[in-house]
Amino acid sequence: MAIDLTPVVPEEVISLGTLIVDLVGVFAGSVLGALQAERRKMDLMGFLVLGLVSGIGGGIIRDTLLQAGPPLALVRPGYLPVAFVGAFAAFLFELRHGPGVKLLATLDALTLGAFAVAGTQRTLEVGLHPGTAVLMGVITAAGGGIVRDVLTRQTPALMRAVPGYYATAALAASLVCIVFSQAGHPKLALLAGMFVGGALRLVSLRLGWRLPV
Amino acid sequence: MAIDLTPVVPEEVISLGTLIVDLVGVFAGSVLGALQAERRKMDLMGFLVLGLVSGIGGGIIRDTLLQAGPPLALVRPGYLPVAFVGAFAAFLFELRHGPGVKLLATLDALTLGAFAVAGTQRTLEVGLHPGTAVLMGVITAAGGGIVRDVLTRQTPALMRAVPGYYATAALAASLVCIVFSQAGHPKLALLAGMFVGGALRLVSLRLGWRLPV
Amino acid sequence: MAIDLTPVVPEEVISLGTLIVDLVGVFAGSVLGALQAERRKMDLMGFLVLGLVSGIGGGIIRDTLLQAGPPLALVRPGYLPVAFVGAFAAFLFELRHGPGVKLLATLDALTLGAFAVAGTQRTLEVGLHPGTAVLMGVITAAGGGIVRDVLTRQTPALMRAVPGYYATAALAASLVCIVFSQAGHPKLALLAGMFVGGALRLVSLRLGWRLPV
Repeated sequence: MAIDLTPVVPEEVISLGTLIVDLVGVFAGSVLGALQAERRKMDLMGFLVLGLVSGIGGGIIRDTLLQAGPPLALVRPGYLPVAFVGAFAAFLFELRHGPGVKLLATLDALTLGAFAVAGTQRTLEVGLHPGTAVLMGVITAAGGGIVRDVLTRQTPALMRAVPGYYATAALAASLVCIVFSQAGHPKLALLAGMFVGGALRLVSLRLGWRLPV
Repeated sequence: MAIDLTPVVPEEVISLGTLIVDLVGVFAGSVLGALQAERRKMDLMGFLVLGLVSGIGGGIIRDTLLQAGPPLALVRPGYLPVAFVGAFAAFLFELRHGPGVKLLATLDALTLGAFAVAGTQRTLEVGLHPGTAVLMGVITAAGGGIVRDVLTRQTPALMRAVPGYYATAALAASLVCIVFSQAGHPKLALLAGMFVGGALRLVSLRLGWRLPV
Repeated sequence: MAIDLTPVVPEEVISLGTLIVDLVGVFAGSVLGALQAERRKMDLMGFLVLGLVSGIGGGIIRDTLLQAGPPLALVRPGYLPVAFVGAFAAFLFELRHGPGVKLLATLDALTLGAFAVAGTQRTLEVGLHPGTAVLMGVITAAGGGIVRDVLTRQTPALMRAVPGYYATAALAASLVCIVFSQAGHPKLALLAGMFVGGALRLVSLRLGWRLPV
C-alpha cells in the first residue's frame, strides 16, 4: 500500500488539479442552485443568493466553524467570481430544459467527494480530531445545499428519504480520506476520497439507493 | 452571602460535575431532536442532522459568535460522540411512544439552566460585557432548538405563545448567574443558575405559564 | 475630485455621525422586525428574537465571516441595548397602525446605505479583496432581514420580485464606496455610499422598480 505519488505527480500539479476540480464543483453547484430561483419565479437577486449559497456556502460554514481565518472562498481568488458567473449564467440562459443541466448534475456528483475531502483535510490541518474532520467533510459538501433548501422553504433534501446518497457519499469520502491520511498517505487519501464520494453519489442515484427510514 | 464552596467541594469535582450535567443535556437534546425526524418520516441522515443540531447546535453558535477558537463541542472529547449516540439511539429504538421520552424531557428541562450558565460564563471568560453574556446564555440553551425548528420548517417553538418557558428560563438562569458572578461567587453562580433555569422550565411547563402576547 | 473633508469635518465628528446613523438604523430595523412578531401572534420572546435579528443580525453575520474578533454589535456599547429597546417598544406600543411605522420605514431606507458602507469598509480594513468587501456590504445590510424571514417562514423578501430595491441598493452603495475608497477618498466614500444606498432604496420603492425575473 506504500504508494508514493510524489515522484510521479509533483506537488504543484496536485494543488492545481485540486483547485480545478474544486472550481468545477463550485460552478456546477452555483448553476444548479440558481436554477431553483427560476423554478420559484425569483428575481435576479434570488438567482445570485441561491447560486452563491449553493456554490460556496458549505466551505464558508466549515471555515466559520473552524475559526482559522476568514473563509477560503472569500480569500482565495477564483471561488467568488466562479460562483457569481455560474449564478448569472443560470439567470441569462434557458438552462433548465437544456442538455447542460444533466452534465452539470454529473459534474456536481463527481465533485462531491472533492468537497468532502477538502473539508476533511482542512480540519486535520487545523489540528482537530479525525471525528470532527469527518463531520466537517460532510458539512463542506452538504452545507450549502441545506442553506439553499432553507431559503427556498424546503425540507433539506439530504434529510428526506429521496433516492441517491448525498451526505452519505460525502461521509464515505471523508472516512476513506481519514483512513488513508492516518495511514500516512495524504495524496492517496485525496484521490481515494474524491473517487469514493463521486462514485457513490453517481451509483446510488442510478440505482435509486435510499437510506433506511 | 459569602459562601465559599472550595473547602467543601474541590475544583475537580465541580468541573467533572459540570461536564456530566452538560453531556446529559446533550444526550437528552439530541435524542429529543432526532425524534422530530421520526415524526417527519425522515431517513437516518435526518435523524443525525436533527440530533446533532439539537444537542450541540446552541454551543456551536455561541462559540462561533465569540470567536475564541473552534467550538468546544468540536474540540473537547465527549460532546460529538454523545450527540451522535443519542441521534442513533432515536433511530434504532421505538422511543417515541415509550416511557423514556418523559424522562428525557425532564432531563432536558433540568439541564437547560446548565447550558445557559455555561454560555454566560464562557462569554465572561472571553472578556465580553455581562449583557452580552446573558444573550449568549440564552443562545447556548435555545439556539440548537431554533435551528432544529427551521430545518423542520416550523416557527421556532420559543417564539410561539406555547405553554412553558424555554428561552425565558434560560434568560433567568443567565441573569442569576451574572448577579452571583459579579458579586464574587462564581461557583454559587453556577449552581444557582442551573437550579433557577431547570426549576423555572419544569414549573412553567407544569403550570402552563406563557409569556404575554 | 480631490475633496478632502478633514479640515472641514474633523475625524471625531465623522465617527460620531456614523455611530448615530448606525444606531438609528439598528433601532428602525429592530422595531420593524419585531412588528413581524405582532403580525404572527408571537409572544414577547418572538418580538425580542425578531427585533435583535433584524437590527443587528446583518453585522453579526458579517463579523462572524470576517473572523477579526467577536461581532462589533456584541462588543461596542449601544448596539445591543438599542436593538433591545426597539424590540420591546414594538411589543409595548400599538405601533403597527400608527404613523410612526412610516417614519421608521423611511429611516430604515435612509440607513441602508450606512450599513452597506460599514460592511464594505470593515472588510477592506481586515485586508480582504474589494469584491469580497462588496459582498460583505450587502450581507451587512440585508443579512438580518434574510434570517428574520427564515424565522417567520417566508421566502426572503430580497429574493422575491417585489417592488423596491433592497440588496440591490446595498450593492450600489458598496460599489460606490469601493470606487471612492480605491481612489483615495475614504470619507467621501462613506458619504457617497450612504447617499446612493438610501436614495436608491427610497426612489425604487416610490417608483415600484423591480429587478428582472
